[in-house]
Amino acid sequence: MHYKLALIGFGNVARALARLFLRKQDMLKAQGIIFSFTGISTGRHGFAVDPDGLDILKALELVESGQSINSLSKSPVANSLEVIQKSAADVMFENSPVNTQTGQPALDHIRTALNLGMHAITANKGPVVHGYRELTALAKSKGRQFKFESTVLGGAPVFSVFREAFPLAELSSVKGIFNATTNIILSRMENGEAYDDAVKYCQSVGVAEADPTNDVDGWDAAIKVAALVTVLMDTPMSPQQVQPTGIRGITPEMIAKAKAEGKRYKLVCSAEKVGDKVIASVAPQLVDSTSPLYGMMNSSTGVTFRTDVILDYSISLSEREGMQGGPIETAYGLFADFVNSVK
Amino acid sequence: MHYKLALIGFGNVARALARLFLRKQDMLKAQGIIFSFTGISTGRHGFAVDPDGLDILKALELVESGQSINSLSKSPVANSLEVIQKSAADVMFENSPVNTQTGQPALDHIRTALNLGMHAITANKGPVVHGYRELTALAKSKGRQFKFESTVLGGAPVFSVFREAFPLAELSSVKGIFNATTNIILSRMENGEAYDDAVKYCQSVGVAEADPTNDVDGWDAAIKVAALVTVLMDTPMSPQQVQPTGIRGITPEMIAKAKAEGKRYKLVCSAEKVGDKVIASVAPQLVDSTSPLYGMMNSSTGVTFRTDVILDYSISLSEREGMQGGPIETAYGLFADFVNSVK
Repeated sequence: MHYKLALIGFGNVARALARLFLRKQDMLKAQGIIFSFTGISTGRHGFAVDPDGLDILKALELVESGQSINSLSKSPVANSLEVIQKSAADVMFENSPVNTQTGQPALDHIRTALNLGMHAITANKGPVVHGYRELTALAKSKGRQFKFESTVLGGAPVFSVFREAFPLAELSSVKGIFNATTNIILSRMENGEAYDDAVKYCQSVGVAEADPTNDVDGWDAAIKVAALVTVLMDTPMSPQQVQPTGIRGITPEMIAKAKAEGKRYKLVCSAEKVGDKVIASVAPQLVDSTSPLYGMMNSSTGVTFRTDVILDYSISLSEREGMQGGPIETAYGLFADFVNSVK
Repeated sequence: MHYKLALIGFGNVARALARLFLRKQDMLKAQGIIFSFTGISTGRHGFAVDPDGLDILKALELVESGQSINSLSKSPVANSLEVIQKSAADVMFENSPVNTQTGQPALDHIRTALNLGMHAITANKGPVVHGYRELTALAKSKGRQFKFESTVLGGAPVFSVFREAFPLAELSSVKGIFNATTNIILSRMENGEAYDDAVKYCQSVGVAEADPTNDVDGWDAAIKVAALVTVLMDTPMSPQQVQPTGIRGITPEMIAKAKAEGKRYKLVCSAEKVGDKVIASVAPQLVDSTSPLYGMMNSSTGVTFRTDVILDYSISLSEREGMQGGPIETAYGLFADFVNSVK
């Protein structure tokens, strides 16, 4: 079976995804899966479509040397929606910059792709929080999939684990560390570094943005909590409802005192079913060495599920050589969504 | 769809499974799944078959009050193989006492069930280590499933996570804590308890047997390593090949010294692909607080997968109220295997 793929957004993650497809092409072929890229939409390097297949290596080369991909296009296209429409793709990967307050333009891209009978796969949290029910229903009505494994734990399986490996289990709570930046900052402060220096370190390695607000005030964590609650607890929730508390109030003195007591501050994300409601929060909490969160240092992240059948099942992604949550891992989450959609 | 179920072995786990089916019957019905129990084989309380459905509550009551279930049987049956043959079951659950050196009689039970066109599901490690390839091929040839989720992490999903959530990933190593008894002993020794007293504690709460050799010398851990390697690395391996080293050589002095250095001894299970080979081991190792294994205390267990696409993905099951790895969780692993087999 031949699958035509459209890449909406062609940044680090999408380019890592293209390379992963190339690296895994023999394994895919062994499963009867052939692919070609038929549409690419970039932020600053143009747009290209060719239902017969674009030269993906050339597209990577052009973008990575700062050139436009327009010359690769078989017909003129001027924006992402046109790329989706003219790509004749079977699967659309949505990884364009998103407004997390509205989920746009990812929402429109995904609606368009699903309406055209494509599977829609994204690493963007926005469309999950703002459109999960609508997009899932639309996908179902078209016999297609809307998937988003890479949204919470940097490409490491979370949603598919719960869906595939926990049949008929009832989820009562989730608890975890979802934001790497704040975890790195708290880890470095435990080693005596000042907050401002720890933020600068995160910026220097590309983990934090120039304005670190989204991370340090807990909004990135809150949108991930909202996504998990919306999907796994089937209860629509916005990041605003989570009302996050960030880590700015954690002083070196507090961290030193905790350390002396064998404890650590972590930016703990949690959501718990209480009757028909879900109570969610993101806030710094003291944890001790009996907690699965205690050992998650630096860029390590993880989540603990409590269910009626298996108590306190944890998934974690450990830091190793700075790779955790990097584009390769996020790309793998998208790739896994593809394989699981078409199998 | 109506499924007839045979329970070969009717100990704590199988009885917890029967109760779990009853507790989840409305959820199963909502998925279009109806069930009845048509065969039960016990060790000391007789045998019963009825293709029209046995009174499972009565069977539980009889066995738990020390009585025989023979009176429930529609036709005379004298052993497990006859129960399988006369139950007309669609799914056979194998949880009878097993010889871990040979995998018998579980192997014969599973072969018989698969040959009769039943799905075969077990919590016994023996048939996985001694018959994985044969039984998987046999199941495939019959269009049925051979499943064993409950064999390694006490019912918590491991195999299905790797199979369903890591498509086309290449597993390079696994590392973990697979034996709760030795982890409890080491945890208690860290709190100053003597080895013998810690063993006695484990025996008193039913975690360790009268002869704790299987646990403390690493054989239980070794058979779990062998099962993981056999299945997930597609490399047949016996517990003997693992050559386990147990925890008898760990002295209170060693534990105190490690504690002073912020480290802990853990009975670490590992397997790593090196070229075409797999190097596996079970041995006490010092771990520090950066290891995902460090925080696994008492009956907590867990495993870390390293793959070519996601580095160091860990799954752990935390102790909580002494329930970890108990019959309810093991029963859930069997139940999940059932749902995943018939869906």
